[in-house]
Amino acid sequence: MTALQYADVQRGAFLDQLKDLVRIPSISTDPTRTGDMLRAAEWLAADMRRIGLSRVEIMPTAGHPVVYGEWLGAGANAPTVLIYGHYDVQPAVLADGWHSEPFDPVERDGKLYARGSSDDKGQVFAQVKAVESLLTEGRKPAVNLKFLIEGEEEIGSPNLGAFVAQHRDLLKADVCVVSDTGMKDMNQPSICYATRGLMYFELEVVGPSQDLHSGGFGGIVHNPAQVIAEMIAALHAPDGRITVPGFYDAVAELSATERETLRHSAPTEADWKAVSGVSGFWGEAGYELHERVGARPTLEVNGIVSGFYGAGSKTVLPAKALAKLSCRLVPNQEPRAIFEQVKAYLLSIAPPTVHAEVRLIAEAYPAVMDLHSSAMQAATVAYERGWGRKPIFERGGGTLPILADFQRQLNNLPIILMGFGLSSDGAHGPNESYTIEMFHKGIATAICFYEELAK
Amino acid sequence: MTALQYADVQRGAFLDQLKDLVRIPSISTDPTRTGDMLRAAEWLAADMRRIGLSRVEIMPTAGHPVVYGEWLGAGANAPTVLIYGHYDVQPAVLADGWHSEPFDPVERDGKLYARGSSDDKGQVFAQVKAVESLLTEGRKPAVNLKFLIEGEEEIGSPNLGAFVAQHRDLLKADVCVVSDTGMKDMNQPSICYATRGLMYFELEVVGPSQDLHSGGFGGIVHNPAQVIAEMIAALHAPDGRITVPGFYDAVAELSATERETLRHSAPTEADWKAVSGVSGFWGEAGYELHERVGARPTLEVNGIVSGFYGAGSKTVLPAKALAKLSCRLVPNQEPRAIFEQVKAYLLSIAPPTVHAEVRLIAEAYPAVMDLHSSAMQAATVAYERGWGRKPIFERGGGTLPILADFQRQLNNLPIILMGFGLSSDGAHGPNESYTIEMFHKGIATAICFYEELAK
Repeated sequence: MTALQYADVQRGAFLDQLKDLVRIPSISTDPTRTGDMLRAAEWLAADMRRIGLSRVEIMPTAGHPVVYGEWLGAGANAPTVLIYGHYDVQPAVLADGWHSEPFDPVERDGKLYARGSSDDKGQVFAQVKAVESLLTEGRKPAVNLKFLIEGEEEIGSPNLGAFVAQHRDLLKADVCVVSDTGMKDMNQPSICYATRGLMYFELEVVGPSQDLHSGGFGGIVHNPAQVIAEMIAALHAPDGRITVPGFYDAVAELSATERETLRHSAPTEADWKAVSGVSGFWGEAGYELHERVGARPTLEVNGIVSGFYGAGSKTVLPAKALAKLSCRLVPNQEPRAIFEQVKAYLLSIAPPTVHAEVRLIAEAYPAVMDLHSSAMQAATVAYERGWGRKPIFERGGGTLPILADFQRQLNNLPIILMGFGLSSDGAHGPNESYTIEMFHKGIATAICFYEELAK
Repeated sequence: MTALQYADVQRGAFLDQLKDLVRIPSISTDPTRTGDMLRAAEWLAADMRRIGLSRVEIMPTAGHPVVYGEWLGAGANAPTVLIYGHYDVQPAVLADGWHSEPFDPVERDGKLYARGSSDDKGQVFAQVKAVESLLTEGRKPAVNLKFLIEGEEEIGSPNLGAFVAQHRDLLKADVCVVSDTGMKDMNQPSICYATRGLMYFELEVVGPSQDLHSGGFGGIVHNPAQVIAEMIAALHAPDGRITVPGFYDAVAELSATERETLRHSAPTEADWKAVSGVSGFWGEAGYELHERVGARPTLEVNGIVSGFYGAGSKTVLPAKALAKLSCRLVPNQEPRAIFEQVKAYLLSIAPPTVHAEVRLIAEAYPAVMDLHSSAMQAATVAYERGWGRKPIFERGGGTLPILADFQRQLNNLPIILMGFGLSSDGAHGPNESYTIEMFHKGIATAICFYEELAK
C-alpha cells in the first residue's frame, strides 16, 4: 500500500480526528482560554507521537507554547522540510451569526463547519496526516521532517520571532512549508507566493469625565463618538486612497510583467461577489480588485464601540469611544514606521476638545516568496499530481507574520505556501467551514510534494 | 405644627422612603424589567394611599402603567393642580463606571447615589412628601391635588399622549406642576421655562453577508464601520452646524430681549467645565453655550457598535454597523418632519456599496412655558420662601415629551417646571446622585407653592 493509498483508506478516521481537534476552543486572544490552548497543544503532540515522529515536545514561549515534532530518519544528506502551522483560532460565539455552535463541528453539504476547521487546524492537520501516511507500516520517507506548530498566529505571532531566533539550529531546514492560505476555486489549484504585513492598532477618544445627559450637554461638549467617526472618516480620500501622509512612500509597485501574469489568473468580479455577498466593490482607484487585495496596502476598521447600542433608546453623550483598526502592508513598508505615521496623523487631526490615544497592538512584515526555487518546482508538480491540473500563482491578502522571521532567521530558506483552504471558507467570520474534499486533496498533495522534493 | 414643620421633623423618614423607591430597578426600556416597573408603580401607589389621597389607581396604558392619585377636598371653587413625574429610570449597570451598585443607594458627602435618585424618583417623591405634609393631622390644603406619575418618560412617553387625551376630564386642572428638571447652582433657585423636543433614531449600515477576513477582502469590500463613520462625520459642518438640508428652517430664533435676559443668568464656562469635566467646548458657531443647550437644536451620537472591540485583536471586516443618534429640537421644529429630513439626507449620502437603514425610535415636541401666568408668580414666591432668594428663569436642554401633550390636550393650562435637581446630578450617566438638601428644600418649596397658589 502506497502512502497515497493509505491516506485514501484512512479518510474517515482522519476526518474524525480533525473533528476532535476543532472541538477545543483554542482562542489565543482570550485570556480565559489558556487551558484550552494547552489542551490543543497536548492533543496535537499526542497525535504526532502516535504517528511515529521520533521527538515531540511542547516548547514554552513568553506566550502560548509551540508544538515541535521531528523525524530525521532520511539522514543528513537528505533535504529537511520545516512544516509550519498554528493551532490557535480566532474568537467565535454563536451570537456572531453562526448557524451551529462554533466549537461543535457539523458536516453539511460536503463541508465541515467549525471555528478553525480551515484556519488553520484543518490545514496543519492535513500536513500531519500526510506525514502519518509517509511513515506508516515502517516506511522511511526520503526527506527529513520538522513540525513547528504555534499558538499565537491569530494574535500576530508576538513571540515566534524570538523562538525561531533562539532555536535556529533545531529549526534548520532546506525548505519551509506553510499550510495556512486559501485558493479561490477548488478545481483550480493555486499557490500563493506573497502575503501582506499587518499593523493593528486602536484609537481611543476620551471627552467628558463620564457619560453625560445628551440634553444637558449635547451641542457644547464635543461628542467622542462623533469625533472618532470624523477621525476615521478622515483616513480615506474619496478615491479610496489612505490619507496618512507618507503611507505609500515605501510601497513597491508591481512590475508590468507581474501585473500581466496576475491578471491572467485573477478572479472575476462575479467570483469576488459570490464569496463576499456584496453587490458592488470599493477601493483604491487605479488598481484592479486582485491587486488591491494582493499588492496594495489597506486600512480597515475592525470594530468600533461607544455609548449605548442596545435595544430602545438612551439619551447619553458618551464619555469615550474606541475603534480597532489595522493596516495590511506590502513590501517595503515597515510596520513600526507605518504605526508612527498613522499615530502622528491621527493625533494631528484630533480636536483639542478631546484626548486621543493611538496604541499599537500587533505588527508583522509582508513577505514575497521566490517563484524559481527548486522547492517551488516540486510543489508545482505535487499540485499537478494532486489536482490533475497545473497550479496558478497568486498574491494573498492575508498576513503570515512568521514568514519574514523565517526568511531572516533561517538563511532565507525557500518557503512554499501550500494552502489547502478556500477563500469562501469564511475564516475569521461566522460559519467558518472546510470543504472536506480539500482536506483529502491537501493530504495527497503534501504526500506528493515530499516525494517530489527528494527526487 | 405647620406643614413645613412636619416636613422638617420627617426628614429622616422621607429619605429612608426614597431609598426604598430607588432600590427598584424600574428601567422602562428593558423588557426584562417589566416586573420591576410594576413593583415601582405599586410601591408609589401604596405610599400615596397611606398619606391620605382619596383615590389612588394604577391605570393601564399600551405600555407601562400610570400611577394616578387625587385629593379633591378643597372643593370645586378651589384651584386644582396636576402634579406630573415619572417612576421609570434610564438603564444602569456597575460596569458603566459606577462606584457603587446603581440600585443600592449610598449616602456620601450629603448626596444620595443611585439611578433615579434625581431623575426622577427623588423629585417626584419630593412632591408626594410635600402633599403628605399638607394633608397630615387632618389638615385640608386650599388647593385640589392630582398626581399623574408615568412609567415611560425615559423612552419618550410613547403612550402618555393617548392616555391624557383619553382622560381629559380626570386630569382637568388649572395648573400643572412638573418636577423633573435641574438647577445649575443649589444656592441660586431657578425655574426652567423651556424644554427641547427629541427625535431619536438609529442608522444601520449593512455590507457583506457576514463578517469577512480583513486580509482577504479589505480594500475591495466597503467596510460598514468605515461607511457609518463617514456618514456620521457628514452630519456636522466644521462650524458645528448640522448639515441636514432644511434642518434649521423651522427654528424660532431667540428674540433680542430674551437673549439679553438669558445672558444675565447664564452659567459661566467654568460652571459648565465643572459639571462636564471637559477642558474646552465645541458647538454651533454664533451662539453662546447656554443658547446652544437651551435654544438651538442639536444632533448627537448616543452610541455606535460594529465588529470586534474586545481585548486584543481580531482582523475582521465587519458585516454591519449600528449607530444610535438623536436630535434635540426647538420650537417650531416638528419631530416627524426632522426625521424625514435626516433620513432622506443619510440615505442620499449612503454609498451604493452598502445597504443603509434609518429607523425612528422616539419623538417628542419642544415646549415653552408662559412666564406671565399667575401660577408662575406663585412659583416665584414659593422659591423665594424656600430658598431665601428670588429664582432666575432659564431654558433647559432636556426633553419632557409630555409638556406639549399637556398643553394641547388640557386647554393649554399653565405648566410650572418645578425642578429640584442639579445639573451636576449626573442624570442618565453613571453615579447619578441627588443632593439631599435639594430633596428637603424641594419639599418645602412645593409646600409653599400650594399655599401661595390658593392666595
